[in-house]
Amino acid sequence: MNAFAPLAAIDAAKLEKLAEVTVKVGLRLERGQDLVITAPLNAVALVRLITQKAYEAGAGLVTTFYADEEATLARYRHAPDESFDRAAGWLYEGMAKAYAGNAARLAISGDNPMMLANEDPAKVARANRATSIAYKPALEKISNFDINWNIVSFPNPSWARQVFPNEPEAVAVSKLAEAIFAASRVDQLDPIAAWARHNDELAKRSAWLNGERFSALHFVGPGTDLTVGLADEHEWHGGASTAKNGITCNPNIPTEEVFTTPHALKVEGHVASTKPLSHQGTLIDDIRVRFEGGRIVEAHAAKGEEVLNKVLDTDEGARRLGEVALVPHSSPISASGILFYNTLFDENASCHIALGQCYSKCFLNGASLSQDEITARGGNSSLIHIDWMIGSDNVDIDGIAADGSAKPVMRKGEWV
Amino acid sequence: MNAFAPLAAIDAAKLEKLAEVTVKVGLRLERGQDLVITAPLNAVALVRLITQKAYEAGAGLVTTFYADEEATLARYRHAPDESFDRAAGWLYEGMAKAYAGNAARLAISGDNPMMLANEDPAKVARANRATSIAYKPALEKISNFDINWNIVSFPNPSWARQVFPNEPEAVAVSKLAEAIFAASRVDQLDPIAAWARHNDELAKRSAWLNGERFSALHFVGPGTDLTVGLADEHEWHGGASTAKNGITCNPNIPTEEVFTTPHALKVEGHVASTKPLSHQGTLIDDIRVRFEGGRIVEAHAAKGEEVLNKVLDTDEGARRLGEVALVPHSSPISASGILFYNTLFDENASCHIALGQCYSKCFLNGASLSQDEITARGGNSSLIHIDWMIGSDNVDIDGIAADGSAKPVMRKGEWV
Ligand SMILES: [Zn+2]
Ligand SMILES: [Zn+2]
Ligand SMILES: [Zn+2]
Ligand SMILES: [Zn+2]
Repeated sequence: MNAFAPLAAIDAAKLEKLAEVTVKVGLRLERGQDLVITAPLNAVALVRLITQKAYEAGAGLVTTFYADEEATLARYRHAPDESFDRAAGWLYEGMAKAYAGNAARLAISGDNPMMLANEDPAKVARANRATSIAYKPALEKISNFDINWNIVSFPNPSWARQVFPNEPEAVAVSKLAEAIFAASRVDQLDPIAAWARHNDELAKRSAWLNGERFSALHFVGPGTDLTVGLADEHEWHGGASTAKNGITCNPNIPTEEVFTTPHALKVEGHVASTKPLSHQGTLIDDIRVRFEGGRIVEAHAAKGEEVLNKVLDTDEGARRLGEVALVPHSSPISASGILFYNTLFDENASCHIALGQCYSKCFLNGASLSQDEITARGGNSSLIHIDWMIGSDNVDIDGIAADGSAKPVMRKGEWV
Repeated sequence: MNAFAPLAAIDAAKLEKLAEVTVKVGLRLERGQDLVITAPLNAVALVRLITQKAYEAGAGLVTTFYADEEATLARYRHAPDESFDRAAGWLYEGMAKAYAGNAARLAISGDNPMMLANEDPAKVARANRATSIAYKPALEKISNFDINWNIVSFPNPSWARQVFPNEPEAVAVSKLAEAIFAASRVDQLDPIAAWARHNDELAKRSAWLNGERFSALHFVGPGTDLTVGLADEHEWHGGASTAKNGITCNPNIPTEEVFTTPHALKVEGHVASTKPLSHQGTLIDDIRVRFEGGRIVEAHAAKGEEVLNKVLDTDEGARRLGEVALVPHSSPISASGILFYNTLFDENASCHIALGQCYSKCFLNGASLSQDEITARGGNSSLIHIDWMIGSDNVDIDGIAADGSAKPVMRKGEWV
């Protein structure tokens, strides 16, 4: 058994810089804050560096919950049928309690995107649904931005093999590591300063869009003619953002997007995905859906259509949008030409929309709005939040003002 | 970094048998039961085998919480001072909730017994105290035997190096693995049958002691002249035992002891330890204590005296006994001649007493007794439960009847 990543293939200095960026930029951990980490077992080297740097930053207690792909697969292969409706509610409730006590949250991503590709889709869907329900109290504290949180990635061998299938494992891990380091800006001399500059850029884009106050965005491209109405009193965000606990953090490392909340009832037309979506271990490709009154009324996928339809059946909000995001086609992640099969990267290579739960912070005074007020403004709610990619160098986007007039926002995938 | 145990040094067939004994003898996991596992990161190979066998036995959901020695050390070396009063209360409360929902509990032991030997004893004591307080709701469900539970061991390299300091790591791991396998009876052709026979032996010893109804045990040996009064309506147990959820399990793999509850107010005399005690990463050796009215009024140790005294100061119950256990000097673990620096093994090589919390099941009708009723019968309560070894081939034990008459129980460390 060789369960740990071939660390020799990973640049140690850059891995340490990634840990530093995670703590100082991603989380901006404050002295005395506890930190809850979830990570794949293989990411132990990164977890240890982050743990050390978190304590150096004054963390109270760092608690890591490791997930093991082998244990997950053992469940699918050996557990009785009734197992697939179960979830560790006690654990997620505990996490929600930790966040309620101002613990910061770090998720390290890097699972094999195809882990569950050969398992029974009905079991996958049941297990995901059970987990979503159990996770809801914790996820709400994250999506409502109660606390500073961050997602960062580790080049897990099983993920690297999927991204670079023709390379030996060590080469694949090395290439994925370098791609993660570049996208996370830790290949630069002063990553902290680089992130400050990048956050400024994204803040300028958000400010422009907030000034325009478009009531809708109109996407046109191959297979796409989609009007995404924006929520009333929506607010654009991008890069660093301030949580309700007052800490300004970068929830995603990397991030290239500016994003806001669509109106759950005002999306019309059809749209085609431009990259495959890796959803909890299965691949959904060539998605084509049609919206009426904000609701997906028709959904197809060349690959994974069954899984897609199960996702859409999760709850009423799963058929409506909770996010729309703009990313130029020339963004560094897109320019790398790598298909990561990982939403954190692929969503930052392309304009995207998300099915499901909206972010309350993407409203004016979002922190003070009740659930009813968010719903009244057009904010969607759901157990899920799944981003999928609809941008490319063939897609044009107009902003539609309240009076119906159109203004170019992107042409051929680039800001005008 | 080589964080995983050198698995080539561990007999794969015996490791799989250990997983089987854990699930079928140690836990007797029932169909539909969830299982919560705590384990050192290095024990991942054993965790995976146990996970598979648990699902094959019909487990609902197996959730593993891994602990990483490196992360613990990072805390001692880099965390701010106030960190050492913190504990992951949310996690332990969650575990208590899982047990309340009838999840079984498995602890895999194998941490480096000397992990914290070079850290500040004051910080170690504060961190342990904070954890003990946070862990109490979960520990109560275990010590009250609400659910089936088990502790089993994995030959962690850092532990193996401590037990066999003169061997190369792979040899040390192999030797420790074989010692664990032998003590856990998985080196036998049919380990399940071997455990059934062993449980019968221990049940016979318990039945004899329960028939005698001694009111005290009198230990005499080098440095020892100790009378341990037994609690009113105490009951002896050993081997398999039935939890309140109705499942008959073997809480410890290995186990060689029969044990009961001393009277918290009726221990008199002095006693010397016969083996070193490894307590949460520090070694306490050559303990000499004196009891008056059940309470330790004087305590010395040639090594680790400061830690010992901090342990005794945990709370009022920490100075009184919660367990007395009889193990013949010829028991297989003792006969191996190995000092394991691990209580699960060393306590099963020797007669021992435990500071702190008693087991409610060691009373007649223990399952139905309230805390007040347990206290009234002489049952001790405390945040801690720490076993230490007082038996050897130089120790004689008499049972003292209610009328004061003495009856030989052990001579030179063996049952009479
Ligand atoms: Zn997004
Ligand atoms: Zn999103
Ligand atoms: Zn014992
Ligand atoms: Zn004990």
